[in-house]
Amino acid sequence: MSILVVGSVAFDRITTPFGTAERCLGGSATYFSVAASFFTKVNLVAVVGEDFTDQDAAIFKGRNINLDGLQRVKGARTFFWSGEYGFDLNVAKTRDTQLNVFADFKPKLDAAQAASDAVFLANIDPDLQMDVLRQCEKPRVVALDTMNYWIASKKESLTRAFQSVDVIVINEAEVRQYTLEANLVKGCRQILALGAKTLIIKRGEYGVLMITRDAVFAVPAYPLENVFDPTGAGDTFAGGLLGYLASCPEASDRELRRAIIFGSVLASFTVEKFSLDRLREITLADVQARYREFRKLTHFEDFTE
Amino acid sequence: MSILVVGSVAFDRITTPFGTAERCLGGSATYFSVAASFFTKVNLVAVVGEDFTDQDAAIFKGRNINLDGLQRVKGARTFFWSGEYGFDLNVAKTRDTQLNVFADFKPKLDAAQAASDAVFLANIDPDLQMDVLRQCEKPRVVALDTMNYWIASKKESLTRAFQSVDVIVINEAEVRQYTLEANLVKGCRQILALGAKTLIIKRGEYGVLMITRDAVFAVPAYPLENVFDPTGAGDTFAGGLLGYLASCPEASDRELRRAIIFGSVLASFTVEKFSLDRLREITLADVQARYREFRKLTHFEDFTE
Repeated sequence: MSILVVGSVAFDRITTPFGTAERCLGGSATYFSVAASFFTKVNLVAVVGEDFTDQDAAIFKGRNINLDGLQRVKGARTFFWSGEYGFDLNVAKTRDTQLNVFADFKPKLDAAQAASDAVFLANIDPDLQMDVLRQCEKPRVVALDTMNYWIASKKESLTRAFQSVDVIVINEAEVRQYTLEANLVKGCRQILALGAKTLIIKRGEYGVLMITRDAVFAVPAYPLENVFDPTGAGDTFAGGLLGYLASCPEASDRELRRAIIFGSVLASFTVEKFSLDRLREITLADVQARYREFRKLTHFEDFTE
Repeated sequence: MSILVVGSVAFDRITTPFGTAERCLGGSATYFSVAASFFTKVNLVAVVGEDFTDQDAAIFKGRNINLDGLQRVKGARTFFWSGEYGFDLNVAKTRDTQLNVFADFKPKLDAAQAASDAVFLANIDPDLQMDVLRQCEKPRVVALDTMNYWIASKKESLTRAFQSVDVIVINEAEVRQYTLEANLVKGCRQILALGAKTLIIKRGEYGVLMITRDAVFAVPAYPLENVFDPTGAGDTFAGGLLGYLASCPEASDRELRRAIIFGSVLASFTVEKFSLDRLREITLADVQARYREFRKLTHFEDFTE
């Protein structure tokens, strides 16, 4: 089993109340790949500049990640994002964005990438998402992420992308922005009516809601005493979710629920340190141990009559 | 088993995007009593004015609610609150508050009230909460609610109240306001260190978090397609929670978790119509059926290795 991810590999400058990390590794495809590689083989498709060193690429080494699709452009610089979090760690203020090599990113898949069993279209231009999808050969599961910028600027293209995937990973505010519906559940039903089978709503520190045609599943986030840097939590979540799902024979309701827990567990590790520093340290055994903690955290019994 | 509640019985004027309800029944002790009476006998202690009619009192009739402590003051008017909700139903804007009879509320418990097995001190002046508590004879469980106003204006008195109860029911913003700690879990630990055994944090549409010295339990709210009027959700939650708990031989971790689900279920009904209109209609069987829905909503299996 393998999963293709198309997205960004970036350098971030991050300021939180606990300090600043200069030029640390970031990008949606970076977090996604590392998280997904705990469960399945990952085909990473992204672009970096000449400033991206072998030391930077070390994060991918020794993991089940195929780097054939990590293009390095000479004489150009890697995508750069700078953000700041205040007392309330839920909201990042963007201080700077430099697209650099990412401005001309137009991925061409090779045969192995195109034959991936699952596909994750990270948060990029929806026209580019569709362009990638057209190059894929009947993947079993296709998922996408998006952001407020594309909802505001490319709604028609985004709607076509929504119509073409199985799983939409999106946050609460984006559901409301896209549908103009205050009630979240009603908004989700509107988006599902476009064609996707599964809508997975990220609610940050409040957890995750899954809505399908037949079921609703809700889970809180793992309550942490030390949230250090929320950057990458959403992409880590998607990586754990879809990596696990790609490793399953089918995306049943049972496996989707487990996949959401694995995604939530991985995201809960990401936020404990800057960048991918915490993801670097952990093993599958750590992930499984926290999965069991999640079971205890959410467990309650039926009532007795 | 019996539970004493001391709080407000009020008339509300409520405006939501779906309409306005004039002079409808409200008040913390009203919602609490009706919710708790599904599980145990309730001793209601509150005060109303001459404008509170037998028709208004009908909500309590046919339920397991002792009204000996519902004092009616001649020539005076009932506590009145007017609030408005916008597109985002999570936040109420207070338009008017008229304390009326509530300004001189100084409850004296009779023998039956003082002997209640459990006590809920609804959101009133913390000095009054302590005054009531001193009149009680060794209740098995004592819980309190509070609000931002008392944290700002009577923090020392509130701290004494926190030190004197077993269960604190509080919302997220109040934990942060009281402790000045951004991280919710850390803030909760600070409050627990004052002496209470159990902290139950209300997170509105995001559910509930329970923190004790030995365990953490988190549960999402029941996702509703029709949230009509959130007024009273918190007091209904507390009523279901403590009414169920008062009916149990002990407040064990297992029963606390069930109690939180029953509270969440009852609150999910309250918000479906104005005032107590939905609570009037439902039976214990409806509550139990939604409890089972809650189990399906939150269920996930252990992973297979």
